[in-house]
Amino acid sequence: MSEKAFQDYFPDHLSHCYGCGRLNEHGFQIKSHWDGDEAICIFNPEQHHIAVPGYVYGGLIASVIDCHCACTAMAVSYRNEGRELGTEPLIIYLTASLHVDYLRPTPLGIPLIFRASVEEMKGRKARVSATLSAEEEVCARGNIVVVRAPEHLVPE
Amino acid sequence: MSEKAFQDYFPDHLSHCYGCGRLNEHGFQIKSHWDGDEAICIFNPEQHHIAVPGYVYGGLIASVIDCHCACTAMAVSYRNEGRELGTEPLIIYLTASLHVDYLRPTPLGIPLIFRASVEEMKGRKARVSATLSAEEEVCARGNIVVVRAPEHLVPE
Repeated sequence: MSEKAFQDYFPDHLSHCYGCGRLNEHGFQIKSHWDGDEAICIFNPEQHHIAVPGYVYGGLIASVIDCHCACTAMAVSYRNEGRELGTEPLIIYLTASLHVDYLRPTPLGIPLIFRASVEEMKGRKARVSATLSAEEEVCARGNIVVVRAPEHLVPE
Repeated sequence: MSEKAFQDYFPDHLSHCYGCGRLNEHGFQIKSHWDGDEAICIFNPEQHHIAVPGYVYGGLIASVIDCHCACTAMAVSYRNEGRELGTEPLIIYLTASLHVDYLRPTPLGIPLIFRASVEEMKGRKARVSATLSAEEEVCARGNIVVVRAPEHLVPE
């Protein structure tokens, strides 16, 4: 894994996302790294990220999948363009649709491993898939469609 | 709208959900009410529920849709059985799949209106759809499949 996470390259004014902004002290502050051609995010839910006793809240799972996949699409785009993450013009992806299948309850209190990979990238659109594993069991699968923001719409 | 929300009928030990638990002080504490045959949830995001400047975080939208739809399925089941919400045996629904289409960016700083209705209920399974509107514009649509927990698996 690389040391600096994908999210650490965002400029300050784009670093407040509730899911992955490093400057949002109320947020989840997820971190995504390369792991070969996949991107990995290890997330340790807090005790209050609960659904029913013993299990992780599904909305949190959807949130981590969302941010982790969108940031993976961004990292792949930078790589495809032979550019360093965070260099201008900035690349950001916005979520068009999010789908999560919850295969089994996700236990609370252990690290969760999210893996994401870009399945297809065509024009401004990308399809990204993800898995969530806990203790080597896949607990959820995600599929999201993201759209690259046109340059003039990237907030400055 | 009825005064007491669907979520207010959960017993204490099931009231810690990060999305809708009335006892989770870190959570979103959403509230769902009947509005005719639909259920409505009005949610006021905080400033830190941000994605990019000016817009609501998509994972929060997915979370509210998830909880609001699952609680709506529960309320419909109680109504179908001619029982008061919260009476035993408890009915709870767990999410099997969640799908959200983000139609346009959702503005941050105004109340969001979520509406949910059960499209189909067959055996233990229900399909619930939802819309999120801001200033009368639909910003997102959700579809979720929930499964009623067998009685012996409802945490006591």
